[in-house]
Amino acid sequence: MPLKTPEQYVDSLRALKIRAYVGGERVEEPIDHPLVAPHVNNAAQTYTLAHRPEHEDVMTAVSHLTGERVHRFTHVFQSSDDLVKKIQMLRLLGQRTGTCFQRCVGLDGLNAVYAISYEVDQGEGTDYHARFRRYLERVQAEDLMLAGAMTDPKGHRAKRPSEQDDPDQFVRVVKRLPDGVVIRGAKLHNTGGINAHEVLVMPGTALRPEEKDYAIACAVPADAEGVIFIFGRQTNDRRKLEGGCDIGNPRFGAVGGESMVVFDDVFVPNDRIFMNGETDYCGTLVTYFATWHRSNYGGCKGGNADVLIGATAKMTRMLGTERNAIVRDKLIEMIHLTETTYASAIGASAMGYALPGGSYMVEPMMANTVKQNITRNIYQIARLSHDLAGGFVATMPEETAFENPEIGEYLRKYHTANPEFDVMERVRFGRYIENMTSVTTMVEAMHGAGSPQAQRIVMLGQAGIDKKIELAEQVIHGTDDVAGLPLPGRSERES
Amino acid sequence: MPLKTPEQYVDSLRALKIRAYVGGERVEEPIDHPLVAPHVNNAAQTYTLAHRPEHEDVMTAVSHLTGERVHRFTHVFQSSDDLVKKIQMLRLLGQRTGTCFQRCVGLDGLNAVYAISYEVDQGEGTDYHARFRRYLERVQAEDLMLAGAMTDPKGHRAKRPSEQDDPDQFVRVVKRLPDGVVIRGAKLHNTGGINAHEVLVMPGTALRPEEKDYAIACAVPADAEGVIFIFGRQTNDRRKLEGGCDIGNPRFGAVGGESMVVFDDVFVPNDRIFMNGETDYCGTLVTYFATWHRSNYGGCKGGNADVLIGATAKMTRMLGTERNAIVRDKLIEMIHLTETTYASAIGASAMGYALPGGSYMVEPMMANTVKQNITRNIYQIARLSHDLAGGFVATMPEETAFENPEIGEYLRKYHTANPEFDVMERVRFGRYIENMTSVTTMVEAMHGAGSPQAQRIVMLGQAGIDKKIELAEQVIHGTDDVAGLPLPGRSERES
Amino acid sequence: MPLKTPEQYVDSLRALKIRAYVGGERVEEPIDHPLVAPHVNNAAQTYTLAHRPEHEDVMTAVSHLTGERVHRFTHVFQSSDDLVKKIQMLRLLGQRTGTCFQRCVGLDGLNAVYAISYEVDQGEGTDYHARFRRYLERVQAEDLMLAGAMTDPKGHRAKRPSEQDDPDQFVRVVKRLPDGVVIRGAKLHNTGGINAHEVLVMPGTALRPEEKDYAIACAVPADAEGVIFIFGRQTNDRRKLEGGCDIGNPRFGAVGGESMVVFDDVFVPNDRIFMNGETDYCGTLVTYFATWHRSNYGGCKGGNADVLIGATAKMTRMLGTERNAIVRDKLIEMIHLTETTYASAIGASAMGYALPGGSYMVEPMMANTVKQNITRNIYQIARLSHDLAGGFVATMPEETAFENPEIGEYLRKYHTANPEFDVMERVRFGRYIENMTSVTTMVEAMHGAGSPQAQRIVMLGQAGIDKKIELAEQVIHGTDDVAGLPLPGRSERES
Amino acid sequence: MPLKTPEQYVDSLRALKIRAYVGGERVEEPIDHPLVAPHVNNAAQTYTLAHRPEHEDVMTAVSHLTGERVHRFTHVFQSSDDLVKKIQMLRLLGQRTGTCFQRCVGLDGLNAVYAISYEVDQGEGTDYHARFRRYLERVQAEDLMLAGAMTDPKGHRAKRPSEQDDPDQFVRVVKRLPDGVVIRGAKLHNTGGINAHEVLVMPGTALRPEEKDYAIACAVPADAEGVIFIFGRQTNDRRKLEGGCDIGNPRFGAVGGESMVVFDDVFVPNDRIFMNGETDYCGTLVTYFATWHRSNYGGCKGGNADVLIGATAKMTRMLGTERNAIVRDKLIEMIHLTETTYASAIGASAMGYALPGGSYMVEPMMANTVKQNITRNIYQIARLSHDLAGGFVATMPEETAFENPEIGEYLRKYHTANPEFDVMERVRFGRYIENMTSVTTMVEAMHGAGSPQAQRIVMLGQAGIDKKIELAEQVIHGTDDVAGLPLPGRSERES
Repeated sequence: MPLKTPEQYVDSLRALKIRAYVGGERVEEPIDHPLVAPHVNNAAQTYTLAHRPEHEDVMTAVSHLTGERVHRFTHVFQSSDDLVKKIQMLRLLGQRTGTCFQRCVGLDGLNAVYAISYEVDQGEGTDYHARFRRYLERVQAEDLMLAGAMTDPKGHRAKRPSEQDDPDQFVRVVKRLPDGVVIRGAKLHNTGGINAHEVLVMPGTALRPEEKDYAIACAVPADAEGVIFIFGRQTNDRRKLEGGCDIGNPRFGAVGGESMVVFDDVFVPNDRIFMNGETDYCGTLVTYFATWHRSNYGGCKGGNADVLIGATAKMTRMLGTERNAIVRDKLIEMIHLTETTYASAIGASAMGYALPGGSYMVEPMMANTVKQNITRNIYQIARLSHDLAGGFVATMPEETAFENPEIGEYLRKYHTANPEFDVMERVRFGRYIENMTSVTTMVEAMHGAGSPQAQRIVMLGQAGIDKKIELAEQVIHGTDDVAGLPLPGRSERES
Repeated sequence: MPLKTPEQYVDSLRALKIRAYVGGERVEEPIDHPLVAPHVNNAAQTYTLAHRPEHEDVMTAVSHLTGERVHRFTHVFQSSDDLVKKIQMLRLLGQRTGTCFQRCVGLDGLNAVYAISYEVDQGEGTDYHARFRRYLERVQAEDLMLAGAMTDPKGHRAKRPSEQDDPDQFVRVVKRLPDGVVIRGAKLHNTGGINAHEVLVMPGTALRPEEKDYAIACAVPADAEGVIFIFGRQTNDRRKLEGGCDIGNPRFGAVGGESMVVFDDVFVPNDRIFMNGETDYCGTLVTYFATWHRSNYGGCKGGNADVLIGATAKMTRMLGTERNAIVRDKLIEMIHLTETTYASAIGASAMGYALPGGSYMVEPMMANTVKQNITRNIYQIARLSHDLAGGFVATMPEETAFENPEIGEYLRKYHTANPEFDVMERVRFGRYIENMTSVTTMVEAMHGAGSPQAQRIVMLGQAGIDKKIELAEQVIHGTDDVAGLPLPGRSERES
Repeated sequence: MPLKTPEQYVDSLRALKIRAYVGGERVEEPIDHPLVAPHVNNAAQTYTLAHRPEHEDVMTAVSHLTGERVHRFTHVFQSSDDLVKKIQMLRLLGQRTGTCFQRCVGLDGLNAVYAISYEVDQGEGTDYHARFRRYLERVQAEDLMLAGAMTDPKGHRAKRPSEQDDPDQFVRVVKRLPDGVVIRGAKLHNTGGINAHEVLVMPGTALRPEEKDYAIACAVPADAEGVIFIFGRQTNDRRKLEGGCDIGNPRFGAVGGESMVVFDDVFVPNDRIFMNGETDYCGTLVTYFATWHRSNYGGCKGGNADVLIGATAKMTRMLGTERNAIVRDKLIEMIHLTETTYASAIGASAMGYALPGGSYMVEPMMANTVKQNITRNIYQIARLSHDLAGGFVATMPEETAFENPEIGEYLRKYHTANPEFDVMERVRFGRYIENMTSVTTMVEAMHGAGSPQAQRIVMLGQAGIDKKIELAEQVIHGTDDVAGLPLPGRSERES
Repeated sequence: MPLKTPEQYVDSLRALKIRAYVGGERVEEPIDHPLVAPHVNNAAQTYTLAHRPEHEDVMTAVSHLTGERVHRFTHVFQSSDDLVKKIQMLRLLGQRTGTCFQRCVGLDGLNAVYAISYEVDQGEGTDYHARFRRYLERVQAEDLMLAGAMTDPKGHRAKRPSEQDDPDQFVRVVKRLPDGVVIRGAKLHNTGGINAHEVLVMPGTALRPEEKDYAIACAVPADAEGVIFIFGRQTNDRRKLEGGCDIGNPRFGAVGGESMVVFDDVFVPNDRIFMNGETDYCGTLVTYFATWHRSNYGGCKGGNADVLIGATAKMTRMLGTERNAIVRDKLIEMIHLTETTYASAIGASAMGYALPGGSYMVEPMMANTVKQNITRNIYQIARLSHDLAGGFVATMPEETAFENPEIGEYLRKYHTANPEFDVMERVRFGRYIENMTSVTTMVEAMHGAGSPQAQRIVMLGQAGIDKKIELAEQVIHGTDDVAGLPLPGRSERES
């Protein structure tokens, strides 16, 4: 069956011999490193839940390529219903892990390449799409985890790829060979890369005709020669070395275990190349990816927020404030902010439409509102959680202090609030709240799938300002051709 | 055919001889009164557009009672798709009229009575549902406009119906006769009542067993004996007597032409009674109505906002500010606020589910976020529109001043901004902006379909706080039964 | 004594024979016109309260020119304490009139001309300052009301005065004579102009050397030949013709009774000219005026908000909702938004500093934050007031309907909430809330003393970004020369 | 001279032999511990800057007790000017350290005890005030750092001190002896306690007559028998053990190095007791302290925000985005949010008034708005900083990775943005932004000086709702006794 078990997932990662640096040092088996393991656990949950009958409907789908039931994270969206189910899957997983489970980037990436390769072929007479379908069949059959890699370093932000002092600030082809190409550059903020099977490389920006070398989409095995993963540092990451509840979410960590992936002159054979020089299509590819990805945030962050709201609500019970009307109203506000983005993500999915290649795109305006609201709401949710959780989130000592025989008793005594609850439960929940409102978490919500201004530019483009002006003119002038009652008073002039 | 033309609609209103007070005085033909006529025009648009082939899909539906194509405003929601199309119809009409077109209250009211009468019959062995289906067949066949009437005066807000000093503060049965009942009381904020064919009376609150007399749902012809319409006053309403562009939206007015409907001991025959004393079901009836109705605001206000955004955008062109990046960003914010609520309304509709009687309900949490956001976003949209439109919205003289030969030239000269545009166009657009951000408009958006706190109470109930706490416990304790990698460091304790 | 009584104020207005258009028509005695009279009442309050011993300290000051006690509205700020007292006076008057009392523009205008004429003289060897002092002595001695006139029509907003198709879009000198100049143009949004004694004309923007003709500051009697007042239209203005409580604030109206003042080739004699061609100083003059004026909004709008909060609070008592914790919290939010701006206005005043000519300027950054917050907070305050006041603000009928014997009883019965309160009191308070949240009121708060972006540009200039970067560098590099403990760990590198 | 040098400060701390736990373990010389040292550096800055002539005016004051020039952090506020200078001192120090410098709590504490001891003596015939003045003379003479200790653990938040299961949840007297008392309990969130000379204990809540044992104010040497400091854990605290720029603010740390201070049956001699059983005064004492303290946040957070804004602005230059209009507008918003609270703090100070004992209190309403705005604005400022700084704040590797010869070159290459800037500068600034927007920092801003709801309760009390209702009645009824023009139309009825 094409669904890996979590154990198979872990084993398959071990079989890869990737070059990875964690905590600034080379490590041989990164997935066992305490800084990485929780993220592996988290991705493993996506494999685990797919085997549960009660979640089959949202966690799996029937492949349009093979007719087999595959993991939804390897599925090409075939309908609006598929898009809606994706959002539901994200919320479920967000609820079950309390943070990022990483596979969305690969999912949206494979969908983007699937769609654009079809369009390139149609326009340019190439055969990328068939290649990609063959590649995708293997991905589905082996239930591979792909790390989508789109964000280039970008260098000077006011300059284009071809204008940079350093031409490698965007991933590019540096050598063309009969059987493939050699690429150089890096992709940043690579979610789950260090525990994925493959890296799916895509151009990160619209390109001009003279920027052909940057128009490269391809799949690279995580352990290909020249691929280097440099694991990023997170807020409070070293607490994972201590273990214990100070980690916040000991089992699943926080955010997606982002890496920088360096491509130090990596050879990519032809059958893994899905775009190569077709600059005209890069903007569309980026837009496809970003649009799907922006709608996701209503799902995954919704699920995460469920956990955070639950943690905050329990905190109010542990403090004894849960009956206060204002406290309840603040919980409601957290709920409202969460559900607004979830509802919009569902709306964007339900209004999905077919792309030329037959797969389904979410409604772009709605998808962009989802992400835009996330970049704001997350900070409000954090604020409300801090408000209700109280100041001890900032000042409570480490777990080991609670265990120190000289002071543990004091700490437990004076951190007990409502004595019906175990004091360590209060500590654990405080640490989770700290974790889920940390800078790493917030910044990811801010910049993942594009910074706030990126969404606004799309909105302006989608809004049809000229059409809206026409609507206003029609209403104000009363110039619609529809018959009706005469206008009041001397307004016959107006009609 | 069951679709009235706008002319037939107007003629059918004239055929009714209602008792109405407009501007504080009795009027014989209210629909011709200048204070009322724009609202009639507006409702007439709902009839007009239903005949246009390009709008047939959203403006009409196939009746599940008769199989005939009927106006969507008389249709019982048969699917999620019907719910989505309702929202699209509302946006279309909002774009074409620039303000409220009134028929939603009746639509949601007939759906609420349809659904609840089924449930009452199932629970109590009554036969209200068949009665209502017969009534509804006539409504569909004659394309009647129903004015939904739910909001009671409510007297002292901290007291229940049965605790009021004046027992008539909620509509109630004051006499029971073999062939019907006599009702007394009033319904407030009745949208479109003065130009509707029928008033659909529903209880306005959950009731206790001892409050049976208040549990009355029934349909009353607008010209029934004892029914009195007292037309409300709007911001700037008397400008309609002047005519001209100072009205803002000369053709369609503003908001829904709300009336107080007084029931001064009105007899209702049995075949028009759809609930009578079944207090247990009143809370559900109110919730059904309110939930549908709250989702609407993402549609109609979205369409209205399209017009307002268009008017504001054109204003920036007339001023010469349209290329400024900050100005554009403010337009984008107006768009974002608008589309957020529309997307959520679509989400709520797409997630619709079947009620016991077979019709479809929107997803309640999402529907409530729509309305909650409206109560905030509308004020932000108004603020941004005022910001971009400039101070002249507050100080420009009346249209007649522009026509006065002594001063008209000065006014036109000194109100000309970008001389490529006619100065009177600037005036007209300013007046529309004034109209659409007036107190009447804002307060309707605030309180229609329930005040903000009403939505928050629903959200808390829907949120599943206990379940969220369990999710948090599971994540934080790592107690899910899912196998995975060992937790890092000394956290084996935690598992 | 230099303090006019309100009766003397009114009589002195009558003695002027101004050319005024109200409601689009020429009127002989504008101050008696119902559209104007409430604004006259309001300005009259500034005269009345100055005679009350309990308000002497804030309402009057000792002239630095004559040593006599004069009205504070004619006083040149001599100290930070004077600036603070101005803000207090504005709050007092705002509380006592519930809307705009108009004299601030003239006050800040005379202060701006006082300060800049000194600086022009110092820089250019002119003698404007002595002229202005003589003029000001008369203003103080006669307790004159000046209408400050700064805002030009501005035509195409992306073009400078000298680039406009119509050169009259900014007031300019069209003829220079030995004994004076002739000016042409108009000033917009002129607060209180129609009931002021004099119009104080100032340039409305920074100017370039080639724009000398626009650099004109002068005082013009309200009834000078060629001066024309065209009274603006307000939201609901015609309700003043009906009388009664529907006006909202029957005694004092709303906002400042703004007019367009046209200068149709008006001759200004030399002794009334205080700047004439000195373009270099115009930017500073505008900045002086705007800075003082922006701080005012913390005072006057604070006083107005006190009345609005009081009206809203009483409304909750009349409804029976006043004990609800959420209701109380919303009142608190209204208070918080109000007091934030008042506190900042006091802060700006307390940090005042002496200008070259010896008078006092408010701290510019703080003054700009006041106005910026007003442009946002006013909309939030309106929203909260609408929320608490309820939907009847949008739908209650006119006062005459309550008096109609056929329906008055119904209206009174069904608008009674808490029966301890007279139903008409609820109506009156609803109408005041409508009035104080109307478009005219909001737009004035948005654009008076400069649109939001104008404040932001000043803030950026005042913020010292380069200095802040240096502060950041110093902290982050630890390069301050201050001795201290060694840095932790290997950070000796850092120092 | 009474001003310690920073070296003397450090030496004097060493001379104390306090019992302290850092990182969960007993440490002998806590101030040398890398987790503590930056906080010592920070407090040392308060000593350093006091010696600089250019800062003498804000950093020092003339003691009203001795006439000597003392550190302003030991000074009793003698005037509004003193209150303003305090805020200025806080902003200066905030700018020079980039985070919390800890001495404000002791300053406001000594002022609170000074004021209340006078009032207790006046009301109860005690002699606490003279005792406290003697104590204060020594504090001033030795330039001692006091750690104000007010916040009790509070146990079950819905229960009073006397209702708790554990009576020690609020600090209390457990034994009364002829020469003193024995106290037990703990104080939380104790800023700077671990590097202060003395702990100033104050009751943390209003008390009832039967709660006499909780009404204790006294000074305890930091090394008194039974006093235990348990250092709290901060976000990213262990990075201080690594050293280097990942700390964010390597020299000065983050927030105030908060501890829990346990009083394990500590004997306090009579001459150090300043209140003992006078429950009636505890509410006032808490209010005095909190009011001063809330106004502080406009100063210190203003200074911190200057550094954060500077760091963010420099980041935009390093990225190459600094000329973008929207980027600039976001910096302006950060400035606006900062200056709003600073202006209000100055306003609160300038409106200071004398307490019965002669010292000066800030205006309470304004002071509370300062803190209320901080609890919101800080999150907005963080959001904007994250927005402009970019996603690398969440994903950049540790500094050691940049130094690793195998990967350092890649990291430096691909983190270079505008190549005119050193890549490590970008890293350092990113780390500072991370530090200043961390959970510890945000939660302190949220809960320090009282949680948000605490301020709102004060506001409601201060607002004079009844008076505001009277103002509204007066305006709306036109019932002021002031003469004026007749009201328009038929409104004579109204007067």
